[in-house]
Amino acid sequence: MKCKQCEKKAVIRLRAHHISLCREDFLAFVLNRVQRTIDKYKIFVPGERVLVAVSGGKDSLALFDILQRLGYAVEGLHIDMGIDGFSQRARNVVEDFLAKRDAPLHLHALGEEAGAGVPEIASQLQRPPCSLCGMMRRYVMNRFAREKGFTALATGHNLDDEGATLLGNVTSWQIGYLARQSPLLPSTHPKLVTKAKPLALLAEREVLAYCLLRGIEFHEEQCPHSKGATSRNHKEVLNLLEYYSPGSKIRFYQEFLKNQRIFSAIESHALQECSVCGSLTTRETCQFCTVLGKLRGSSRAASDRIGASKG
Amino acid sequence: MKCKQCEKKAVIRLRAHHISLCREDFLAFVLNRVQRTIDKYKIFVPGERVLVAVSGGKDSLALFDILQRLGYAVEGLHIDMGIDGFSQRARNVVEDFLAKRDAPLHLHALGEEAGAGVPEIASQLQRPPCSLCGMMRRYVMNRFAREKGFTALATGHNLDDEGATLLGNVTSWQIGYLARQSPLLPSTHPKLVTKAKPLALLAEREVLAYCLLRGIEFHEEQCPHSKGATSRNHKEVLNLLEYYSPGSKIRFYQEFLKNQRIFSAIESHALQECSVCGSLTTRETCQFCTVLGKLRGSSRAASDRIGASKG
Repeated sequence: MKCKQCEKKAVIRLRAHHISLCREDFLAFVLNRVQRTIDKYKIFVPGERVLVAVSGGKDSLALFDILQRLGYAVEGLHIDMGIDGFSQRARNVVEDFLAKRDAPLHLHALGEEAGAGVPEIASQLQRPPCSLCGMMRRYVMNRFAREKGFTALATGHNLDDEGATLLGNVTSWQIGYLARQSPLLPSTHPKLVTKAKPLALLAEREVLAYCLLRGIEFHEEQCPHSKGATSRNHKEVLNLLEYYSPGSKIRFYQEFLKNQRIFSAIESHALQECSVCGSLTTRETCQFCTVLGKLRGSSRAASDRIGASKG
Repeated sequence: MKCKQCEKKAVIRLRAHHISLCREDFLAFVLNRVQRTIDKYKIFVPGERVLVAVSGGKDSLALFDILQRLGYAVEGLHIDMGIDGFSQRARNVVEDFLAKRDAPLHLHALGEEAGAGVPEIASQLQRPPCSLCGMMRRYVMNRFAREKGFTALATGHNLDDEGATLLGNVTSWQIGYLARQSPLLPSTHPKLVTKAKPLALLAEREVLAYCLLRGIEFHEEQCPHSKGATSRNHKEVLNLLEYYSPGSKIRFYQEFLKNQRIFSAIESHALQECSVCGSLTTRETCQFCTVLGKLRGSSRAASDRIGASKG
């Protein structure tokens, strides 16, 4: 197997692109692909300060590495979601990764703000932890970026993530979601930061290979709560499609983006400011503040019960 | 496992519908579902003569049986595609099935018209047999129905067939095809017969169970040329989705139908009459006549070569 670019020994075969590449040309391919995604979808304005959400997983660390190499002024935001030992190990990986790079790392611990990590909050409020975790992370990321004057927040969503979301939206024909899914979600309000997914055209396998070949040490552990998540199932379904017909994943996503205007003639939800924190929401009180409020209410009720039984 | 309707012992569990049913109630469920499909999509006009395309497989025989039980005046059309022993065995099954029913069977042999069956035509013209077979069957069915004064042609496409087609159209975002896929394709021209798929909301597994429980002897053989067909792969992909989330298939298809108007704002191809047979086509000569023409040309050239070598 020879590299298509230089005829040296190839290290990876990309069936979806009908090419095999050596290490150097593969690393260049990845950088080139991200730059093309940024240019095509006008993801960043030249000179823009970019906040990268770094969980410690392969995708976010690869994204940070690639954006830095492409010359963007990046800073990292890591949110400690308070998941048992998992979060502590993720945080260590992120700190080690950023320590070697000339870029600031911002840390936010959910536990300090909410008084509990995601698993306790989920069990206290009897809600599934994954959707709760996603909602709270998005909230904190947007608030942090806005308060610190960042105009763009970049996340490491890769083609498999985007494809799985698209498959979910398509199989239940969620027209509203279909109208909005994109590598770039531009800000539609001063309180909403632009969200960018510069890895959206790179397959998960390509991002993984990038980390391995670049020597990036990432947090390999799966979150203990993610087992059985719908997105995982959808990824498997897409992998079967890709197995039968290489290139299906990228075609599915790119042809969707080309035709997306079809879905855009939809009603948008009216946004208002949360009565507690002032962030944008479709309700009177945003979900984040609702969760914190319930949490405080239930711990107050618990301490009242303890007080009553003591008294 | 008890029947949801009558508490007798259930014979089948329908996870997508959250029910288990006994034999009698399952057979009634199937009839009811087909009648609801016919009503919902206004598939047949009361008293309409319906031509059912009967290949001999489970779907077409179940369709014939169900439509007859629902009181429709059905007649069968079987096209012998000239595939080695496969077609002969299919024809025997269809003749046995129709002999027991008070309904006419029309037979058409492609070999008599074209001078060869699908495999020879495919190899002579170096074309893939499956698309050729589909094109020629559709042509003969439409022509036959039109010439014999039928206003509707019913085929046994089930939910898995429709889902696989939809998945193919969605993964490559074929907007034109998405605009047209439906349990009912109304006639848009006097030369085009209305096409109906009354089993479109019944899963393949449900149709199979119907045949087994009703004692319908169908042609079980897979066509020797269908191996590796894209539709089979798409069915497997959908089955994986269904396994993870029961009800996915029917939701995918029904929600699509609800939202299909989104795709309808598309260009339609201009239709003209074929210069040879007068049927409708987007080209000067329709595909069927093009194939027959090439076939005759190549056999004439072959006999010329034989004549020349003899002379």
